[in-house]
Amino acid sequence: MFISFEGTEGVGKTTLIRKFYEHFQALGKDVVLTREPGGTPLAEQIRSILLAVNHEESMSHDTELLMMYAARAQHLTQVILPALAEGKVVLCDRFADSSFAYQCAGRGLSKTKLKLLNENFVEKMPDITFWLDAPIEVGMERARERGALDRFEQEKITFFEKVRSGFAEIHLQEPDRMKRLDATQTSEQVFEEAMSYML
Amino acid sequence: MFISFEGTEGVGKTTLIRKFYEHFQALGKDVVLTREPGGTPLAEQIRSILLAVNHEESMSHDTELLMMYAARAQHLTQVILPALAEGKVVLCDRFADSSFAYQCAGRGLSKTKLKLLNENFVEKMPDITFWLDAPIEVGMERARERGALDRFEQEKITFFEKVRSGFAEIHLQEPDRMKRLDATQTSEQVFEEAMSYML
Repeated sequence: MFISFEGTEGVGKTTLIRKFYEHFQALGKDVVLTREPGGTPLAEQIRSILLAVNHEESMSHDTELLMMYAARAQHLTQVILPALAEGKVVLCDRFADSSFAYQCAGRGLSKTKLKLLNENFVEKMPDITFWLDAPIEVGMERARERGALDRFEQEKITFFEKVRSGFAEIHLQEPDRMKRLDATQTSEQVFEEAMSYML
Repeated sequence: MFISFEGTEGVGKTTLIRKFYEHFQALGKDVVLTREPGGTPLAEQIRSILLAVNHEESMSHDTELLMMYAARAQHLTQVILPALAEGKVVLCDRFADSSFAYQCAGRGLSKTKLKLLNENFVEKMPDITFWLDAPIEVGMERARERGALDRFEQEKITFFEKVRSGFAEIHLQEPDRMKRLDATQTSEQVFEEAMSYML
């Protein structure tokens, strides 16, 4: 089973993933905890270029999108597909939906480009995706408390509003796969809401 | 004018590019010398991941292809398109044809994937491309003399034979754009042969 967790900054993805991890471990399952962009040493090198704030030049939107999919291809081949083949549970902090929300809805990149990358370079989509949704101000406050902001976290509120609407669009188009969770609840309530979809 | 130079390892691209550079400078033209993968500080960071030989994991073919196009998108946006807009001559050591020759012909990646990346992420192809062609053994000997080999240069002879056939295929399909030069000649003869196409 392949589960991904999505949402804007500071909505509580890490906490929810930890609860899922403990839940599956208690059931005696083999669980792989991973994240995007990254998840392998090479993909983490790509991540560090993607998140760095001190580039001498601005990164073109196409470059950002292609690097996300380069890291994703590596992550799928090295980690996700082998783990699923061995019957493990894969919990992934962000996946392809983030590319739609951040690069298309957020940056305004064409959906055509994203669609063809998904169709040609993403062999497997998650079985279920949890979208942790909260007003942008709530999450940004939590993200700021964590310390230095990366290249994405430094974006403006209007950018994150667009990202949020991107997640909402996927939720509307694929309600069976993507479940919306009210991330303004306590972490325990969010976990219970998520679990209600796992039956 | 946008001119690219292609070929397998050690066929004399650098020498020919230098002669072109001097030629255009003597004519009083503004010339930009650049290379792929790379050509901008950020794209050079991608290049260093692509060429490194000490990765803990093998790089998936899709990852390699997507990183090449990520670097190319950055290079086009930051360097090539602005230079052409200013009326400069751009001399580029390798461009999209290398992706076809190395990733498709060499690695066996689908031409469909490459075609859609070219169509969606490469805004401008070279006006003319010089393919320096020589038997693989000749070039490999020269490449070895230059010192430590990168991840591509460490490939086997059979890989480079496939890459060479990839360049031959482009030459066959686009004879107006891609000109074959006999790279077993002296560098002066190669330059003269190239110049004969510039009239």
